[in-house]
Amino acid sequence: MKKDRRVLVDHTTLDDAGVFAYGRGEALVQTVDFFTPVVDDPYDYGQVAAANSVSDVYAMGGRPLTALAILCVPEHGLPDGTLREILRGGQDKLREAGVSILGGHSVKDPELKFGYSVTGVVSRRRLLTNAGVRRGDRLILTKPLGTGVLATALKRAQLEGAALKRLTRSMTTLNRAAAELAVEFGAHAATDVTGFGMLGHGSQMADSSGVTLKLSPRADWFMPGALEFVQAGVAPAGLGNNREFFSPKVYGEAIPDPQRALLFDPQTSGGLLIAIPPRRAAPLLRALQRRRHWHVEAGEAVARRESAIVLEAG
Amino acid sequence: MKKDRRVLVDHTTLDDAGVFAYGRGEALVQTVDFFTPVVDDPYDYGQVAAANSVSDVYAMGGRPLTALAILCVPEHGLPDGTLREILRGGQDKLREAGVSILGGHSVKDPELKFGYSVTGVVSRRRLLTNAGVRRGDRLILTKPLGTGVLATALKRAQLEGAALKRLTRSMTTLNRAAAELAVEFGAHAATDVTGFGMLGHGSQMADSSGVTLKLSPRADWFMPGALEFVQAGVAPAGLGNNREFFSPKVYGEAIPDPQRALLFDPQTSGGLLIAIPPRRAAPLLRALQRRRHWHVEAGEAVARRESAIVLEAG
Repeated sequence: MKKDRRVLVDHTTLDDAGVFAYGRGEALVQTVDFFTPVVDDPYDYGQVAAANSVSDVYAMGGRPLTALAILCVPEHGLPDGTLREILRGGQDKLREAGVSILGGHSVKDPELKFGYSVTGVVSRRRLLTNAGVRRGDRLILTKPLGTGVLATALKRAQLEGAALKRLTRSMTTLNRAAAELAVEFGAHAATDVTGFGMLGHGSQMADSSGVTLKLSPRADWFMPGALEFVQAGVAPAGLGNNREFFSPKVYGEAIPDPQRALLFDPQTSGGLLIAIPPRRAAPLLRALQRRRHWHVEAGEAVARRESAIVLEAG
Repeated sequence: MKKDRRVLVDHTTLDDAGVFAYGRGEALVQTVDFFTPVVDDPYDYGQVAAANSVSDVYAMGGRPLTALAILCVPEHGLPDGTLREILRGGQDKLREAGVSILGGHSVKDPELKFGYSVTGVVSRRRLLTNAGVRRGDRLILTKPLGTGVLATALKRAQLEGAALKRLTRSMTTLNRAAAELAVEFGAHAATDVTGFGMLGHGSQMADSSGVTLKLSPRADWFMPGALEFVQAGVAPAGLGNNREFFSPKVYGEAIPDPQRALLFDPQTSGGLLIAIPPRRAAPLLRALQRRRHWHVEAGEAVARRESAIVLEAG
C-alpha cells in the first residue's frame, strides 16, 4: 500500500498521535482515547478524560483545536445526573484548553467509558516526535508518577482526603504549559507518560531515537503515598504487564523496589517526558520553576548502549 | 459559554458532522461513528463501517482525509482472524476513499463494535448543510431505502444469496461520487440518510431550512424484498422508534404501509438526500445516469406548511 506523503506520523510508529501535513508549514495532529472511570466523582472523571485526550496533541508540540466526544454508556444503573456531570467536566476542561467540541457518538456498553477524539495543529518545523532525542539531551519529567497505583488504592477505598485531591489535581492538569514551554525553549522530543509507564514510554523514545536514556530516579519523582501503596501490594494489573514487557529494555539493578515498580506504573493523564539540549534545559527549568510547574530533572540521553534505559541511583 | 467563531457547525445543530474554519476559505469537517456488526462477514463489516463513517463528511460536501479507528472488542470468543479481516475491510474501503488511517484506540466490550473518527476538508463556500434547502429545490435520493429491514432479516437468517449481496453492495458503496456531483452541479443542501430514516433526516432538513419537503414515494425507492419483509413484520426496533418520533412531522395518509413504514427505516451507510435548484437538477440527474449511479427523484421543497414533510402518491 502506497502511503500518502502527507502522513508524517501514523499508527506504524510508536508516537502518541498521528500527524498529517495540511496547510502551509502546518500539520494536523490527531488522537483518540477513552476509558473507564478512574475516579468516583463524575465531573472529575470528565475532566481527567479531557485532559488525557488532549495530552497526546501537546506531546507532539501541537495545539488542540477540536474534539468529538465518545461515550459508551450502560442502559440502566447510572445515578441521575451522572452523564451530565461527566460531559460538563469534559467540556470545562476542553474550554480551558481552548478546544471546541464539534460533536460525538454514544453507544450502549455495560461498562461506562468516556473520552475524545482530538484534532490539533502543529508547526511542522516544531513537531516533537519520539524519534527526535539526541545524545546529550537532558530529560525533564513534568508530572509525578504513581497515578495508576493511587487510582487502584482509590478503587479499594484506601484513598481519601488530601491524597485523593492530589491525585485528581494531577490527572486534571493540562500538559499545555509544559508543552508550550518545551516548544518555546526548543526541545528536541517529547512524549506523554501514559499506559506504558515511565520506562515503557522512555524506552520507546530511546529506541525510536537510537539513544539510551540514563535515568536517576529519586523519591521525589513519585506522588506522596505511591511508594507505600505499591510496597503494600496495591498495583494495577497494567503495572505487572508493563514490567514483564519492558524489563528487557532496562539495565540497572541499583534501583530496588518499590521505586523500580513505580517506574512501570501505567499513568492516566501523565506528564510529559521532554528531551532538550543542555544549553536550553536550564532556561526551560527556570521557566517551569517561575510558573511553579511541577518538574524533575530525570536524567540524560547518551550514546546507544545495549539497553534502551539505564537506571542509576539518584 | 462563548463559542469559538471558527465553529461553523457543531453538535447543537442537527447536521451530520461538525465544521471548523481552518485555512484560507476552507474548513475541517469532523465526525465519529461506530456500531455493532450489521453483516456476518467481518471484511464486509469493516467496509460498511468505513463507508458509513466517511459518509457524514461527504454529506457536508467535504473530502475525507484522515481517520482514527475505534474498536470495542470482546476479550474472548471472536473467531481467529476476525479482527484482522474487519480492519482490512475498513482499510481497503478508506483507501478507496483516499483516506489515511493515522491511529486508533481499542477497548474491551462484551459486544463487538467498530468504526472511525473521520476528518475531512471542505470549501467554506461549498459547504452543504441541512439548512440550505430553498423553495423550489428538487430532491434526489442516491441509494435505495431498506437496509435496516434487510439487515434485520439477515440477523433472523432470512436473507441470503443475491439479496444479501445487494444489501452488502449498497452499504459498502461510498457516497463519494454522489457528493462530488452534488457539489459540482451546485446543490443547495444535502444530508445522508442514516439512523433516523428518510423521514427523520428529511424533516430535520425541512425544519432547519424553514421549508416543507413534498415527497412522492414509489416502489422503486426501496431495495428489492424490503417491502415484503416489513409487511411480514421484519423490522428493527429503530423503525418503530423513528415512526413514533417523526410521525408528527409528516402529513399525508395517501401512502399506506408497508411503503410508509420503510420511510422510517433506520439506514446504515445510507445514500444522500440532495436538494438542488431545478435548472441544475437536470444535469445532475444526467450525470448520475451516465455513471450508472443509483438515484430517484424524490420530490421538491415547497413553501413551509404546518408539517415538515408532505407525502403524496408517487
